[in-house]
Amino acid sequence: MSASGVVAKGLDHVVVDRSSIAWVGGETGDLVYRGFDVRDIVPGVAYESAVHLLLHGDPPTSDPSPEVVGALRRERHPPASSERVVDVLEPTVPPLEALRTIVSSLGDGRFGYPPTLEDGYRLIAQTPVLLARFVRRAQGRPPVAPDPNLSHAADYLHMLTGATARPEQVAALESYLVLLADHGMNASTFALRTAISTQSDLASAATAALAVLKGPVHGGAPSLVSDMLDAVGSPDRAEAWVARQVAEDRVLFGFGHRAYKTDDPRAVVLHAIARRVAAPDRLLLAETVEACALAALRAAHPRARLYTNVEFWSAVVLEAVGLPRTLFTPTFAVARTAGWTAHALEQASDNRLIRPDLEYVGPPKGRSWPRALPGRGTTG
Amino acid sequence: MSASGVVAKGLDHVVVDRSSIAWVGGETGDLVYRGFDVRDIVPGVAYESAVHLLLHGDPPTSDPSPEVVGALRRERHPPASSERVVDVLEPTVPPLEALRTIVSSLGDGRFGYPPTLEDGYRLIAQTPVLLARFVRRAQGRPPVAPDPNLSHAADYLHMLTGATARPEQVAALESYLVLLADHGMNASTFALRTAISTQSDLASAATAALAVLKGPVHGGAPSLVSDMLDAVGSPDRAEAWVARQVAEDRVLFGFGHRAYKTDDPRAVVLHAIARRVAAPDRLLLAETVEACALAALRAAHPRARLYTNVEFWSAVVLEAVGLPRTLFTPTFAVARTAGWTAHALEQASDNRLIRPDLEYVGPPKGRSWPRALPGRGTTG
Repeated sequence: MSASGVVAKGLDHVVVDRSSIAWVGGETGDLVYRGFDVRDIVPGVAYESAVHLLLHGDPPTSDPSPEVVGALRRERHPPASSERVVDVLEPTVPPLEALRTIVSSLGDGRFGYPPTLEDGYRLIAQTPVLLARFVRRAQGRPPVAPDPNLSHAADYLHMLTGATARPEQVAALESYLVLLADHGMNASTFALRTAISTQSDLASAATAALAVLKGPVHGGAPSLVSDMLDAVGSPDRAEAWVARQVAEDRVLFGFGHRAYKTDDPRAVVLHAIARRVAAPDRLLLAETVEACALAALRAAHPRARLYTNVEFWSAVVLEAVGLPRTLFTPTFAVARTAGWTAHALEQASDNRLIRPDLEYVGPPKGRSWPRALPGRGTTG
Repeated sequence: MSASGVVAKGLDHVVVDRSSIAWVGGETGDLVYRGFDVRDIVPGVAYESAVHLLLHGDPPTSDPSPEVVGALRRERHPPASSERVVDVLEPTVPPLEALRTIVSSLGDGRFGYPPTLEDGYRLIAQTPVLLARFVRRAQGRPPVAPDPNLSHAADYLHMLTGATARPEQVAALESYLVLLADHGMNASTFALRTAISTQSDLASAATAALAVLKGPVHGGAPSLVSDMLDAVGSPDRAEAWVARQVAEDRVLFGFGHRAYKTDDPRAVVLHAIARRVAAPDRLLLAETVEACALAALRAAHPRARLYTNVEFWSAVVLEAVGLPRTLFTPTFAVARTAGWTAHALEQASDNRLIRPDLEYVGPPKGRSWPRALPGRGTTG
């Protein structure tokens, strides 16, 4: 009952399992899906093919993956009960919180243990349909039915807006979805694997992941990058604005990562995509803020190895795709349903309950309940 | 990118943090809440007072805790939006899955970071109200409004049945709720702390905990104990039935625990309570099955130190209280909202992102995407 001193708070560098899904090379700036460098497949590879790669371990025989295209098309019609849940949620609920409730509602007894590929396709296919339904309902607009002839990325945008997006917007969103489809271990995936470790199901596990993703330390911050760019306002104000934030020890959003001690490869690719789709003014503002922030942060913390992280350029790209800020993290979740499914299947394939210890440092056993307090429980 | 050999799969014996909430003495058979042995406070102490102890660290000035009684009374009216979610869920959804969706719906933007005591009271108070509403609706019956003059335990039963329970049933349920109110670290509490570690909120974190609790390896098994007792049928059949299960390597539900290598103190106390409230036939059946199972299991696994766990006598007590089997694990969750709140507050008080590593053992970087597959993403 006393402190022994060995506490792995945060579990940094504790290896909880082996995985063959994704390699995050924090020192070298690598993100590899089952042996494929994400820089070699983005842009260019369809989200459906990335899903295929993550779930099956190998690329499909043609692109986009016919198997995944077919499965997602088949599963793109959510149960009426989940639609009813969407339709009673308050329009004021933040979309990321609504999404947690919506995904939970998919778990109505049809998802079991062990998780299956079909469970995964259902989760990947139905998440954007129900999210878009909620978003439109909150805007007072009727839902847009899924279009089986559109790609996953194009249909997501179509269901949100009811309009046909420009091809370069769809391409940018597709690249984003592929880049964010998995990232090895992280807090939400860890919660998902913890859920599967108790032999819970994929809908429950994805709900747990969404509950964890909400935290700004994990997935909840990209919209703050857009807010920050708005606050700066114009490139000529960037240097002074950034200097003041650093001097006052305020956070600059979009920099630093627990894993990457060099360029985050996703940030590099998303920056290149932003050059193609972002409005020139916004791109210049973002590039100027990035340069000023990196200079100021590195001067203030010379040993910290700070780089731009995925959230910074995600925000600029998702803005250019036309998504409102409240949908940035939910769209991250839409992408990540692929990786979550892969991790759930992998965890179940060689499962063991994840259950660490806490060291008790409270009062020792032996305190006496006050005698003047006769219990009520004994008499009802 | 290659296996180093040090993998803490399951995180057994990895100490993830220090805590002053509960001490689980696995070798000595102890469960201690903030210095109080649960055997000294059960039966006798009101659930409201156990909540007080867990959340504040000390016993209340009178029993039941006036502060907690007042807070739960104040918070016992869920938002209409969550009631609407309850009212659109299919009656066929298992109550534990419904409860996950219901608790998620409480997180509509009003729960923030850091979690507060008021958040906790809201969670503890509203969970049984909404669960009972769902259960009655699934039975085609109108909801029973909370009664501010009843204790938490009595009101839970009243909202479920619409009738006044017998005092010994309320007392038994109250004891159960106190005994299950916390258990230090376990998979659901760990998921909750992981959620809080990203600066997510208490409603999200409790949702994650419920998603994890669903797994039969964690909280999902007590109803299987009742099924097992039914299958045995009568005491004279117990020995042969148990022998056949063990011979065929089938699970006997309610025995063995990751932490306890001796009597689980909760099982001991619940057994004593069962002696007072269970029907004599059922009690005799349960005691006979327990004795046969322990003898058979110990003969088959002489080194495993197998004892009766909390689920075995929980099932017998909750049956005697009048709860259907589908409510056993949800009632566990009703009890545990107290401990979950205590852990959320403690995690937030000295927070650090919980993010372990995975060791990548997949194909090495450098695979080439088939050239015959031109990407669609580049053209939209």
